[in-house]
Amino acid sequence: MCFFNQTADNKPKEECGVFGIYDKSGKNCARTIYYALYALQHRGQESCGMAVNDDNHIFCHKDLGLVPDVFSDFVISQIKGNIGIGHVRYSTTGDNTRENAQPLASKYVKGTLTIAHNGNLTNAARLRQELQEQGAIFQSTNDTEVVAYLIAKERLTSKSIEEAVAKAALKLEGSFSLVVMSPRKLIGLRDPLGIRPLCMGKVGDDVTIFSSESCAMNAVGAEFVRDIKPGEMVVVRPDNTESIQYAKSEKTALCVFEHIYFARPDSVIDGQSVYEARKLSGKLLARQYPVDADIVIAVPDSGLCAAVGYAEESGIQYDLGLMKNRYIGRTFIQPSQDMRERSVNIKLGAMGACVKGKRVVMVDDSIVRGTTIKNIVTMLKEAGATEVHVRIASPLFLWPCYYGTDIPDRDQLVACHYSVEEICENIGADSLGYLKLESLREMVPDLKMDFCDACFTGNYPGGVPEVSDKNAFEQSIMEL
Amino acid sequence: MCFFNQTADNKPKEECGVFGIYDKSGKNCARTIYYALYALQHRGQESCGMAVNDDNHIFCHKDLGLVPDVFSDFVISQIKGNIGIGHVRYSTTGDNTRENAQPLASKYVKGTLTIAHNGNLTNAARLRQELQEQGAIFQSTNDTEVVAYLIAKERLTSKSIEEAVAKAALKLEGSFSLVVMSPRKLIGLRDPLGIRPLCMGKVGDDVTIFSSESCAMNAVGAEFVRDIKPGEMVVVRPDNTESIQYAKSEKTALCVFEHIYFARPDSVIDGQSVYEARKLSGKLLARQYPVDADIVIAVPDSGLCAAVGYAEESGIQYDLGLMKNRYIGRTFIQPSQDMRERSVNIKLGAMGACVKGKRVVMVDDSIVRGTTIKNIVTMLKEAGATEVHVRIASPLFLWPCYYGTDIPDRDQLVACHYSVEEICENIGADSLGYLKLESLREMVPDLKMDFCDACFTGNYPGGVPEVSDKNAFEQSIMEL
Amino acid sequence: MCFFNQTADNKPKEECGVFGIYDKSGKNCARTIYYALYALQHRGQESCGMAVNDDNHIFCHKDLGLVPDVFSDFVISQIKGNIGIGHVRYSTTGDNTRENAQPLASKYVKGTLTIAHNGNLTNAARLRQELQEQGAIFQSTNDTEVVAYLIAKERLTSKSIEEAVAKAALKLEGSFSLVVMSPRKLIGLRDPLGIRPLCMGKVGDDVTIFSSESCAMNAVGAEFVRDIKPGEMVVVRPDNTESIQYAKSEKTALCVFEHIYFARPDSVIDGQSVYEARKLSGKLLARQYPVDADIVIAVPDSGLCAAVGYAEESGIQYDLGLMKNRYIGRTFIQPSQDMRERSVNIKLGAMGACVKGKRVVMVDDSIVRGTTIKNIVTMLKEAGATEVHVRIASPLFLWPCYYGTDIPDRDQLVACHYSVEEICENIGADSLGYLKLESLREMVPDLKMDFCDACFTGNYPGGVPEVSDKNAFEQSIMEL
Amino acid sequence: MCFFNQTADNKPKEECGVFGIYDKSGKNCARTIYYALYALQHRGQESCGMAVNDDNHIFCHKDLGLVPDVFSDFVISQIKGNIGIGHVRYSTTGDNTRENAQPLASKYVKGTLTIAHNGNLTNAARLRQELQEQGAIFQSTNDTEVVAYLIAKERLTSKSIEEAVAKAALKLEGSFSLVVMSPRKLIGLRDPLGIRPLCMGKVGDDVTIFSSESCAMNAVGAEFVRDIKPGEMVVVRPDNTESIQYAKSEKTALCVFEHIYFARPDSVIDGQSVYEARKLSGKLLARQYPVDADIVIAVPDSGLCAAVGYAEESGIQYDLGLMKNRYIGRTFIQPSQDMRERSVNIKLGAMGACVKGKRVVMVDDSIVRGTTIKNIVTMLKEAGATEVHVRIASPLFLWPCYYGTDIPDRDQLVACHYSVEEICENIGADSLGYLKLESLREMVPDLKMDFCDACFTGNYPGGVPEVSDKNAFEQSIMEL
Repeated sequence: MCFFNQTADNKPKEECGVFGIYDKSGKNCARTIYYALYALQHRGQESCGMAVNDDNHIFCHKDLGLVPDVFSDFVISQIKGNIGIGHVRYSTTGDNTRENAQPLASKYVKGTLTIAHNGNLTNAARLRQELQEQGAIFQSTNDTEVVAYLIAKERLTSKSIEEAVAKAALKLEGSFSLVVMSPRKLIGLRDPLGIRPLCMGKVGDDVTIFSSESCAMNAVGAEFVRDIKPGEMVVVRPDNTESIQYAKSEKTALCVFEHIYFARPDSVIDGQSVYEARKLSGKLLARQYPVDADIVIAVPDSGLCAAVGYAEESGIQYDLGLMKNRYIGRTFIQPSQDMRERSVNIKLGAMGACVKGKRVVMVDDSIVRGTTIKNIVTMLKEAGATEVHVRIASPLFLWPCYYGTDIPDRDQLVACHYSVEEICENIGADSLGYLKLESLREMVPDLKMDFCDACFTGNYPGGVPEVSDKNAFEQSIMEL
Repeated sequence: MCFFNQTADNKPKEECGVFGIYDKSGKNCARTIYYALYALQHRGQESCGMAVNDDNHIFCHKDLGLVPDVFSDFVISQIKGNIGIGHVRYSTTGDNTRENAQPLASKYVKGTLTIAHNGNLTNAARLRQELQEQGAIFQSTNDTEVVAYLIAKERLTSKSIEEAVAKAALKLEGSFSLVVMSPRKLIGLRDPLGIRPLCMGKVGDDVTIFSSESCAMNAVGAEFVRDIKPGEMVVVRPDNTESIQYAKSEKTALCVFEHIYFARPDSVIDGQSVYEARKLSGKLLARQYPVDADIVIAVPDSGLCAAVGYAEESGIQYDLGLMKNRYIGRTFIQPSQDMRERSVNIKLGAMGACVKGKRVVMVDDSIVRGTTIKNIVTMLKEAGATEVHVRIASPLFLWPCYYGTDIPDRDQLVACHYSVEEICENIGADSLGYLKLESLREMVPDLKMDFCDACFTGNYPGGVPEVSDKNAFEQSIMEL
Repeated sequence: MCFFNQTADNKPKEECGVFGIYDKSGKNCARTIYYALYALQHRGQESCGMAVNDDNHIFCHKDLGLVPDVFSDFVISQIKGNIGIGHVRYSTTGDNTRENAQPLASKYVKGTLTIAHNGNLTNAARLRQELQEQGAIFQSTNDTEVVAYLIAKERLTSKSIEEAVAKAALKLEGSFSLVVMSPRKLIGLRDPLGIRPLCMGKVGDDVTIFSSESCAMNAVGAEFVRDIKPGEMVVVRPDNTESIQYAKSEKTALCVFEHIYFARPDSVIDGQSVYEARKLSGKLLARQYPVDADIVIAVPDSGLCAAVGYAEESGIQYDLGLMKNRYIGRTFIQPSQDMRERSVNIKLGAMGACVKGKRVVMVDDSIVRGTTIKNIVTMLKEAGATEVHVRIASPLFLWPCYYGTDIPDRDQLVACHYSVEEICENIGADSLGYLKLESLREMVPDLKMDFCDACFTGNYPGGVPEVSDKNAFEQSIMEL
Repeated sequence: MCFFNQTADNKPKEECGVFGIYDKSGKNCARTIYYALYALQHRGQESCGMAVNDDNHIFCHKDLGLVPDVFSDFVISQIKGNIGIGHVRYSTTGDNTRENAQPLASKYVKGTLTIAHNGNLTNAARLRQELQEQGAIFQSTNDTEVVAYLIAKERLTSKSIEEAVAKAALKLEGSFSLVVMSPRKLIGLRDPLGIRPLCMGKVGDDVTIFSSESCAMNAVGAEFVRDIKPGEMVVVRPDNTESIQYAKSEKTALCVFEHIYFARPDSVIDGQSVYEARKLSGKLLARQYPVDADIVIAVPDSGLCAAVGYAEESGIQYDLGLMKNRYIGRTFIQPSQDMRERSVNIKLGAMGACVKGKRVVMVDDSIVRGTTIKNIVTMLKEAGATEVHVRIASPLFLWPCYYGTDIPDRDQLVACHYSVEEICENIGADSLGYLKLESLREMVPDLKMDFCDACFTGNYPGGVPEVSDKNAFEQSIMEL
């Protein structure tokens, strides 16, 4: 059967969201994890799961599907415990198997070890090879399984789980925000560059929370405390909470695409409001690419904040030129060939009354392949727009990402093959402006660290993979 | 199991959407109906179905669930035929049974008779009683079954199906937009008052389409032709298409709530752009209730157009103060008691960076019970808004609807029990303004007919039900 | 997808089983119906359902599937009430739609009317036509819908539901065992010829039961009281139970195939033990077709009782030469072409150690197409049987059935095209004997009435259908 | 929800069945595995799976459920490859998780490693502990994961996979029949005692097959070649097939319960026909416990062969006194308390016409708790049997099994607490005879090896577990 992915709109995909909770006074953390995963669902829609520790019994439930598909009220009501971790996952098709769903619950020499991971290890292939050379077997294509092995190995010569986690983390390259649950501890840590986000919150004095984004804190009524620092590990124990700087890095490098597209606008990441960053990107665009127009519109939902920023800065009226169908689901039947070009019409509708006879500035966050935006421009013109000026709230997309997001190969990135002028002509726009690369820093004034902009510059702060591990592995085990 | 309905946000519910297609040159109308139902999904999310006529064989498939849940690629590929009708349905819980899913396919004296209905008959109880007194049996609680019986009866003494449909329609009271399929004809008709919308479109010369809203035309690449007139029936035959004015009414009365909330903003109904009407309502609010504020925000998605209109008219900057979680699904586990008040946090997130320290004008389409809006105001204030001025893009909601929408009983309508001042205080707003009743006409300047505003005035153009039929019936047959 | 039906072993199919219960002192009849339907499952495996009356509320639940697929513990626990009816159904493919699942719950002039039917009306087409000519619409291809209409019509001029049921029943031709539930009464009735079985039981003084077969009584701990007589109707009221002989017929005609194949051997029908009848058929075969052999084996499960009878009468040792795979389910993937001839190997296994070097008498109940039995004979010979003598516990199958069973067309009945000698040769048997037609009466010595043997004689006691109604109708409405 | 397991009739449960195929000339082995698993379904009904190797890509599909539930035609059609293994599994409730479904597909230092296992390791806890002390993590409670690790470890210092498998196998204690698939080889091996069966077959020259039982050979049209010997490993390579005696054991010990109950009667295991062994057990019973009676009946299906043997030896007529409901499925709603004692009536029906007034010998294979057989005796007496003489075709059940079957604890084994006389009285039988322990050898005259009778004698040829590993582990990871 042919499916048409909900998010198959040429956007890069975040590969995961993690959540952890330690409740010193209650056993109902499953319900909290459930709502938190709902709030993090935008970070991964292919599988999800949670593992909860009830006095050293681990209840683990995970499957392919969205949070409401995987968790019923009955399942949630069966899961008791005071420590728990949750995960949402996106993956490329070949990998999207039950085996790869997280968290990964396992038993090792000191009892149970459960891990949820957001990120991508650039040295996973080598680590996996080394472990195999010591006799390890791998049942999934998940980096998480590599992490679990390393921790289990290090634990043999470490005095505590936190020591083992720290030693293991030092062997990892690439990006990782991890939540680790041992029989009596909950640990949250972030890679030395801080590529993927991770923050900490609390509910009163008894409940400590880790989350990929602060929006999950709001959803569950928790208070945001602070971001985990690059190279930091926070250990929550029954009687205290300790911060350990397990690694020191000269540089830091939060993925700037979190601010551009991945994160929810109501999150604050490393000091910077995502909403604010996006709005600023729109304002910068307005200054960099002013145009004489009647209205500013957004491609919903990715261009909303930037469009409002563009409107505010330019003084041109913000308006609603495109309407998104909220019911387009995960399994959407492929249009037949003759309807194919109209598929964007099913997901978006042009508001004729809004754009007719108008000169339109249309704002979106990024262009990957260029096909969707071309269809949207066409739709607007058919609806009567006299001019369509496209403004893109990020620089030209030129390089693949090795740090946990899914971006097409270079040969599919339109900006690798055409000039801005050619793209403009190709998509039928009257003008086209990308946010200038040198403005990226301006876009995130409150960010308390440096950022990774490798997808725009090819400058990879965490190195690149030694071998293209994933594909090699994918060839050998597939799950139906 | 407890479910929490996606649309259970205190909004009135539209009860149905209908679609019909007659393709003189092809047999693939199932796929077109599928995409059209997607575009009409906002009019009903509880069940859906389609019936397609292939040379007098009727293929009918319908079930509880959203369009992508009910129709797989396999099912669609199995349905061939050149005439077809589709339906999406909302219903109150007790009625939400498979038996009540539409279209209703039946066999009668002249072959097959298939019907899809949007609306509500105020004399259904009496008609059902009369039919039972002649020996009829009813297998559902659908008004559609009553309509089918009446047509079958009238057909006995009529020369054609269209004559029978016209005679039957004259016996119906209340609201109805119907699509009727006979072995070789497709008929679309609208009640004499035109309470529920119905329009007509085409693809080239061979394909004729009926749809509750024009947005479905765009989705399937059809061209909008015109609205069906109140009291008009359009008959599509193999060789011609005829318009019959089967009823003449002094007055006309399109449900004004279609323009306020039900319809998709990219639809045009009876000459009036829905987007335009909503934006105008915001402009009117700005004139009627000006306020000194920093930003205008919408309650997404219901208040979007009006908020943009308010911003444009007032000159106050439009901004994004609230973020909607796009993944909240149909089956959402009920929060536990202590999290109950926070349930709005799961569906909406306040953008702290946007509202902090700001005087906010917040626009929504209507207030029913008042609880949701109270939670949203609280959320905004907690996020730092210094003032929250609520503007409602419709008059006070005071009366139940008998014409095919689901509105709570009067004892649950907050405006029946409290003054505007009391509501304002109760929801914690700094000021509250409802669109003035006398401005309704101004809101729909292009509307080519009169409208029904019974929910605001209690003035019912189509009469009220003789007895509360539905409840009586519901008590006797329930489906698990 | 291709399915391979569990019962697709060339056996005729019973089309239904019915059950009814009136409990004057409790409300838990749903669970009893559930277990009764389990015991009647052999009478229909395609859909099942129950309707229970709780103080004039009808809870109805039915769907395609076996009893354990359709009813979960949750559903059963939700159904309360003191009167209820249940149904299991087999149907030919085209008809196997949800719409056709029974019971049929409807509302008519006097409240609720719910019906379960086993049998087939030979005048259904005419009745349907007549009703349509009075304005009726039909939503299914079920005869039950016709019955419901007739009762509703008759009720208009009758003093009671039982009078209406009796008048309606007099208009029906063909076979019917009906259970009818009105708001306060439960009625069981049987056609004037008594073609399909129906019996009555009780639990203590408060619970009255109707069932297609007595085996369901045992399963639910009820006591068998007696068979309903041909042309009899039994009315259970809150305060009494009445027997009404609504029709008088010169002749009676229980379907003899109930005793040959359809019914469960632990049932007693119209005075005759099914087990006893089958065993007798085997004894008769032993007298009619003696043979010098080493062992007698059965084709499981259809030939079991007759084989034991043959062994007892002949003095030849009964043995287990064939093993049936108990896990072959409803949805069994079609073997590929090259494995097709081996498909019987998947369902049956020959016991090599049993048949090797032996002269085998193999007993089965009937031969329809002849293909399965040919494969079994081959399998036995491959396993080492030196001779295979086939004995069939019924006469030659020559005529279609119009009274509620599914038998292939004459062109597929092997006995219509070949002589016994030819069939013997074709299936590779060393000898072949069919029960002599004149012995049928001997087989059912305790049967308190005459029987229908139309499938062997073409002598139809209840007439034949006026037109081939079902196919005509099937062409016009199909459900996916 | 409460389920009532299909096999919850107090019988011991076999824990697995394995199958392997190497097809040198085709890629359609998935379909063959599917039919083979159907034939082995009686060895495990809780989960099943298959893994197929297509040129070093492994397609693995497994899940909870029966073969037809887990594999659709679509899934089967997607699986291509020329080497494959399959598995059916039974497990105790706590273990019945997806994680524990087999085969286990993994990647190790030399590529892919896929394993299916039937048996139980008595030193699994120690092996797991040792592996964990070297850094291993365990994601399931399956012994198979332990085996995979050991093979992976040994492979580091071995020249070939077969050498690694042999070395690993020498470290295993308890019972194991394994099928192992490497990128280019298929290996079948059996533990040194040969506790669990495993045999080998072929189709022409190109296809080699391993199977737990020979019945699967017949089902797929393969030819039985021979049994794998205790301590033997057979390696199928692209160009040859080699037998390696990896272990030498003084004693051999096929589980005698395979012949008594587990295996399908049409299988031949280690030279002994299962059918023949069971029939012989009945003959032995007839000699050991003769009785003056009218008929011999079986408890279907477990007592069938022995009953026929008893009848043959005693000269008493075999008859059908009990009827089994073939539709009792896996998910069968728990009867309410008052119906509980009648639950056996739902699964079995007494044939009143058969047993009434008769002195009955009733044969079954074994008695575990004694409750079911008591209910059956009661049912027969209620149906009119004047005497019921129970004959059990195995000795007294006294000891738990540690070699891969599921037998209740000693405190639930009725024979551990009561004498034969007491059991006889308790179950209401007129006499009771168990097969004499000293006759076990007589029952399997063709068996080419010794057998394990630990469940009758407490004499464990393969040792007993060091610690009760499984429960300890189960406490720490549970899957919902």
